[in-house]
Amino acid sequence: MADRGIVVLGIDPGSRVTGYGLVREVSGQATLVATGTVRTGSVKDLGVRLGKIYSGIAALIEEHGPHEAAVENVFVSKNTMSALKLGQARGSAIAACAVAGLPVAAYEPTVVKKNLVGTGRAAKSQVAYMVANSLGMKNPGWPEDASDALAVALCHLNQRRMNRLIGEAS
Amino acid sequence: MADRGIVVLGIDPGSRVTGYGLVREVSGQATLVATGTVRTGSVKDLGVRLGKIYSGIAALIEEHGPHEAAVENVFVSKNTMSALKLGQARGSAIAACAVAGLPVAAYEPTVVKKNLVGTGRAAKSQVAYMVANSLGMKNPGWPEDASDALAVALCHLNQRRMNRLIGEAS
Repeated sequence: MADRGIVVLGIDPGSRVTGYGLVREVSGQATLVATGTVRTGSVKDLGVRLGKIYSGIAALIEEHGPHEAAVENVFVSKNTMSALKLGQARGSAIAACAVAGLPVAAYEPTVVKKNLVGTGRAAKSQVAYMVANSLGMKNPGWPEDASDALAVALCHLNQRRMNRLIGEAS
Repeated sequence: MADRGIVVLGIDPGSRVTGYGLVREVSGQATLVATGTVRTGSVKDLGVRLGKIYSGIAALIEEHGPHEAAVENVFVSKNTMSALKLGQARGSAIAACAVAGLPVAAYEPTVVKKNLVGTGRAAKSQVAYMVANSLGMKNPGWPEDASDALAVALCHLNQRRMNRLIGEAS
């Protein structure tokens, strides 16, 4: 029976643009399943916006059947209103995963960077380069939100593998 | 055919306790359908917490079939991290309404107070008193989050009625 591996859904939530990235890992090799964005840009109504994010993520889960989900923990420095808006988008997206039965892992931004580039202080462009590289692609031209979502999905796969190896060695 | 009226679901979201209140209005008379709280208190996992809020609200919608939903707009003064947490709870609850097809109205806290008590600077205890009074009850002993959720539901019903009367008069 073929090893179908594990599929992880990475999400980079935002009140206007929510990035997503689905990555499959089989025998330690990661491949791209799908990536893109859920956009609520022009919609004013809060309920409709949050419904769009939820339904967008739920549809991706339905279509691709990921086993686990991962998001970045966010550091909100700007102001409380933008933190509230980001929280609402994040809450809607994470609820869609939870309701579909996916465990949701959260990683600090520095952990994602260190995991992919080797340093927690890597530039965004370095992370984007390593995301494409890990998936065997050159200059894929993904939007930043999509690439960031793939980054946290790849980080989660790496973290899982490390945890498994540590478990086997001990 | 009996007028079944309109049922409004008021929600007071919070990361630990989310209050809800369902009110039915028939011929201008409001009655209590159900009120209470969805609690996530002891759960640490973010996905599980937000999934609980979503599922709790979705189950209430399924059981009571409200036609519309209402939430208070929140003023977040404390810090960005509490704003983010509140936003996540709010996003999850509002998404549950939107996915079920309910329009979600949002009201400023001062509007809710003015609507129920007559002044935007009313004390919490005055609002709670008027909520119970509007529903024909004395000292019901509802938790504050439940009472606040009923307040926004009643505010929405009053606002709808006023808008209809203005529409008919113009």
